[in-house]
Amino acid sequence: MLKGVLPPIPTPFREDGEVAYDKLAENLERWNRTDLSGYLVTGSNGEFAALTEHEKMRIWEVARKHIPAQKRFLAGTGCETTRETIAMTKQAASAGAEAALVVTPWYNKGAMKSRELVAHFTAVADAAPIPILLYNVPQFTGVTMGSDAVAKLAEHPNIIGMKDSAGAMEVFAEYVRVTLPSFQIFIGSALSFYVALCLGARGGILALANIAPQECVLIQRLFEDGKQEEAKRLQLRLLPLARTVTSRFGIGGLKAAMSMRGYYGGPPRPPLLPPTAEEVEAVRSELAAAGVL
Amino acid sequence: MLKGVLPPIPTPFREDGEVAYDKLAENLERWNRTDLSGYLVTGSNGEFAALTEHEKMRIWEVARKHIPAQKRFLAGTGCETTRETIAMTKQAASAGAEAALVVTPWYNKGAMKSRELVAHFTAVADAAPIPILLYNVPQFTGVTMGSDAVAKLAEHPNIIGMKDSAGAMEVFAEYVRVTLPSFQIFIGSALSFYVALCLGARGGILALANIAPQECVLIQRLFEDGKQEEAKRLQLRLLPLARTVTSRFGIGGLKAAMSMRGYYGGPPRPPLLPPTAEEVEAVRSELAAAGVL
Amino acid sequence: MLKGVLPPIPTPFREDGEVAYDKLAENLERWNRTDLSGYLVTGSNGEFAALTEHEKMRIWEVARKHIPAQKRFLAGTGCETTRETIAMTKQAASAGAEAALVVTPWYNKGAMKSRELVAHFTAVADAAPIPILLYNVPQFTGVTMGSDAVAKLAEHPNIIGMKDSAGAMEVFAEYVRVTLPSFQIFIGSALSFYVALCLGARGGILALANIAPQECVLIQRLFEDGKQEEAKRLQLRLLPLARTVTSRFGIGGLKAAMSMRGYYGGPPRPPLLPPTAEEVEAVRSELAAAGVL
Amino acid sequence: MLKGVLPPIPTPFREDGEVAYDKLAENLERWNRTDLSGYLVTGSNGEFAALTEHEKMRIWEVARKHIPAQKRFLAGTGCETTRETIAMTKQAASAGAEAALVVTPWYNKGAMKSRELVAHFTAVADAAPIPILLYNVPQFTGVTMGSDAVAKLAEHPNIIGMKDSAGAMEVFAEYVRVTLPSFQIFIGSALSFYVALCLGARGGILALANIAPQECVLIQRLFEDGKQEEAKRLQLRLLPLARTVTSRFGIGGLKAAMSMRGYYGGPPRPPLLPPTAEEVEAVRSELAAAGVL
Repeated sequence: MLKGVLPPIPTPFREDGEVAYDKLAENLERWNRTDLSGYLVTGSNGEFAALTEHEKMRIWEVARKHIPAQKRFLAGTGCETTRETIAMTKQAASAGAEAALVVTPWYNKGAMKSRELVAHFTAVADAAPIPILLYNVPQFTGVTMGSDAVAKLAEHPNIIGMKDSAGAMEVFAEYVRVTLPSFQIFIGSALSFYVALCLGARGGILALANIAPQECVLIQRLFEDGKQEEAKRLQLRLLPLARTVTSRFGIGGLKAAMSMRGYYGGPPRPPLLPPTAEEVEAVRSELAAAGVL
Repeated sequence: MLKGVLPPIPTPFREDGEVAYDKLAENLERWNRTDLSGYLVTGSNGEFAALTEHEKMRIWEVARKHIPAQKRFLAGTGCETTRETIAMTKQAASAGAEAALVVTPWYNKGAMKSRELVAHFTAVADAAPIPILLYNVPQFTGVTMGSDAVAKLAEHPNIIGMKDSAGAMEVFAEYVRVTLPSFQIFIGSALSFYVALCLGARGGILALANIAPQECVLIQRLFEDGKQEEAKRLQLRLLPLARTVTSRFGIGGLKAAMSMRGYYGGPPRPPLLPPTAEEVEAVRSELAAAGVL
Repeated sequence: MLKGVLPPIPTPFREDGEVAYDKLAENLERWNRTDLSGYLVTGSNGEFAALTEHEKMRIWEVARKHIPAQKRFLAGTGCETTRETIAMTKQAASAGAEAALVVTPWYNKGAMKSRELVAHFTAVADAAPIPILLYNVPQFTGVTMGSDAVAKLAEHPNIIGMKDSAGAMEVFAEYVRVTLPSFQIFIGSALSFYVALCLGARGGILALANIAPQECVLIQRLFEDGKQEEAKRLQLRLLPLARTVTSRFGIGGLKAAMSMRGYYGGPPRPPLLPPTAEEVEAVRSELAAAGVL
Repeated sequence: MLKGVLPPIPTPFREDGEVAYDKLAENLERWNRTDLSGYLVTGSNGEFAALTEHEKMRIWEVARKHIPAQKRFLAGTGCETTRETIAMTKQAASAGAEAALVVTPWYNKGAMKSRELVAHFTAVADAAPIPILLYNVPQFTGVTMGSDAVAKLAEHPNIIGMKDSAGAMEVFAEYVRVTLPSFQIFIGSALSFYVALCLGARGGILALANIAPQECVLIQRLFEDGKQEEAKRLQLRLLPLARTVTSRFGIGGLKAAMSMRGYYGGPPRPPLLPPTAEEVEAVRSELAAAGVL
């Protein structure tokens, strides 16, 4: 049973481009002091597509060691092929991940129709030793899962939920409509966190939660306490910052913000580049404006 | 002060293509028995772009006669040019409309940047004898109003609100964020009615409200009574029907549904065509499935 | 039989926003000294959607008087409805237009499927006293005509050709493939003029031809004389300027360029705005770079 | 110096999903009897994103053995990161590839601005022991290279050309315009092969050439012999088939067509699925209609 706010944590890199496993541990220890429900490791903001199989394995091992029992450990294990996704999901399970978030394949986007998606996720869920969550993120993949595919896959006993980062709330609502309440749907965009809760989301897997964990958690608490107006106001206040660390400046911007908040940020892995000095200033001013600096 | 649910009423046509003013009156009288807050006349679903200036005038006159004092009368007055929009807005005012909904110009979509939109709406609002609401509907216009333009225009004393039909809730939230609470924002898509209310919408101007007025009103009542869960459930139940009478089958589908609900539907004006027999059956089955037949 | 280069001429407006009919006459007299094959009057660049019925009539009358017998006179007559399009096409014919260019309806873009388009253009062609050309321009209309609809419509005895401004050359090629060689296809984008000729276009209806008529004509002459390499080089040279007076700065940019070339440009009609001082300089420098100043 | 027609050859898989290296050899031997100028191995149609590093290496080794000296051997070496792309390009070089085709990174599509692309391709070209060609294919990557980035990268001594599969011919023309004639630009879409030649393409890297090699070669021969009309007619005849083995049925459709033409097709690697029986029939009928069965 998943619930609450989980950050898709960035993978820290040293200046020479290697994974900074020690910084990963430090960041986790720091986040552990917050009310986050758990972590998504090697997701989109973890630059999973830029990591080797070996690096992912070591990251999961480090994560396992530094994620306490009361917090959930999700691993992003999706790859371009069904076979590789199965293999990585097994490895994540053996490294101690409690569930796997599996992104839709993304290079052959035009071919990812419902027939292909159902076959792919079914094969992965059949083979996976841990539960699976579907991951719909068209801004990276160019693929939007049809609600017919989601309805069908939600019946699989080993597919327990979904992360939807598309931000199209009428499609999100449709996902909710065609699945049972036991299917655990998370929103993957802080821009729509509050409205997703209103529609029945279990919580959010939010880039913003890396730098404003307590604020994100507070939105959900206020919501659950029936303080709709306050929840809404907080959501609105965080909008520009949420945009800053996602669509506006991407992972480089998120990492710059992490540094400002006392975490290890570091550079993204090329071809991603660190933000320019000007962009760093824009990030700083948005942090200040949102009152989280 | 606007609030609640208003349908953008279809313009009834006779089989020979002429406006059926008598049917317009009959439909209004029937809707008057519901809890709708008012009407949008000659909006997108009113096929405004298919009407002559003279026809719009007569429609407004008929509407004025059949809209009771306790219900609001909005007229869609937007045209491709600033000058024509001003002229039509004055005519709507003289015909008794209480406020004008002004769509962004739509043919030169690529040129409708914030500079042009601010100049256009300011000129219209300066000249209009009645208050103005902005109308953002990219599915018809290909134009999305920037939040900078909305923020600026919301300060105009004669621009009292906005109808946003885009359905992109993070943009909707941004419109809410950059304007004062006194700025009256309505959602224009029944697919997102409930979440829009959660974000602070005053109500909805909803095609669905033509055929399911009480259900739409009930969503808002439940929301205002703090019955979030029930409101959400009703919203989810209505999703497929809302899609059926908008993106799926368009105005022809909406008119077919009106006939099934006891209103006068009739044909749309060519180049729009009535739905095929198969499409009519699909409309009927969605009405049944939603429990509004 | 149409052939060669025709500019879609801008409608000149005075500073007070009224049509400057005298300037229209002067511009035509000036263009008459070039090798243009004719003119498209009240097309997209003629701001047809911003003109009243009465203004269009007067423009056609002036055009008729100033277009000599050896040059063709096409009138843009498309409106949002079938009935209005028929009426305007009859008026254009009575004003002396030799053929009508009929744009796809554009507000209800989602509903403009092949069924609707075939019915619309067939009705117009049946009723029109002059031959019809289809006009496909998704950048303004949001509608792309299916090649199945074009194939069917091309069989109508009164539909003699098409202007395709989309610039998607594989679709253009498909239009050529599914129609007979007698169907007269024109390209509506100077960016693709040369390749369209290679694919069998009869010529171009090109915004660029308003300010660089001889250069556009020369591309076609070189092509027809088998001087492919020279034609290509000239096409490439004109690319940036072609972009400047269309997608980059729109009709305002085109009008600014006209002034620089000795024609009457004047302001566009609001909501379109004249280019800023900076944009005017950019237009000037592109004209210079293309060697047409 | 590259020139002519090269197919992006599919990677053959056995029914159990393993690479069928022997079938790769057989297919190459069969293509060697045609007038193809060479081969692109492990490109998009080679399902490169579905292959492990080890598989790619073995495929290149087999290809090297079966590609004769007079035919060119290009290897697709692009990966999501700069470092991995460099590593794979070195491996391809050591396996005997003569040049590397490097696709733009594709997961973080929103971040692939000109700054990132210039840094990425420069780093790869600096490190590569063999010449590099840029590869622009937005239908798979969601990234369109800006012409400013292409202009800059074309000056790099180790970047000798480009494959552009976007099919937007005005952008293709712009790439030609901003680079020197020595920069070797290939079109990657058979739908636009002929017009690309007209604009100065050196040839085509065409999925269609896998199943209709001589027809594709003939288009270029006719073009070079000045037989424009015949070249155009052949291009038009091949349009539907070109669509069938790309956008319409994808790699599964291409492989089905290969079987019909006497090559080894086999299944694609999941999540890609073989075409349905109905789709296979559609492929067969397009082959027949194009006269290549």
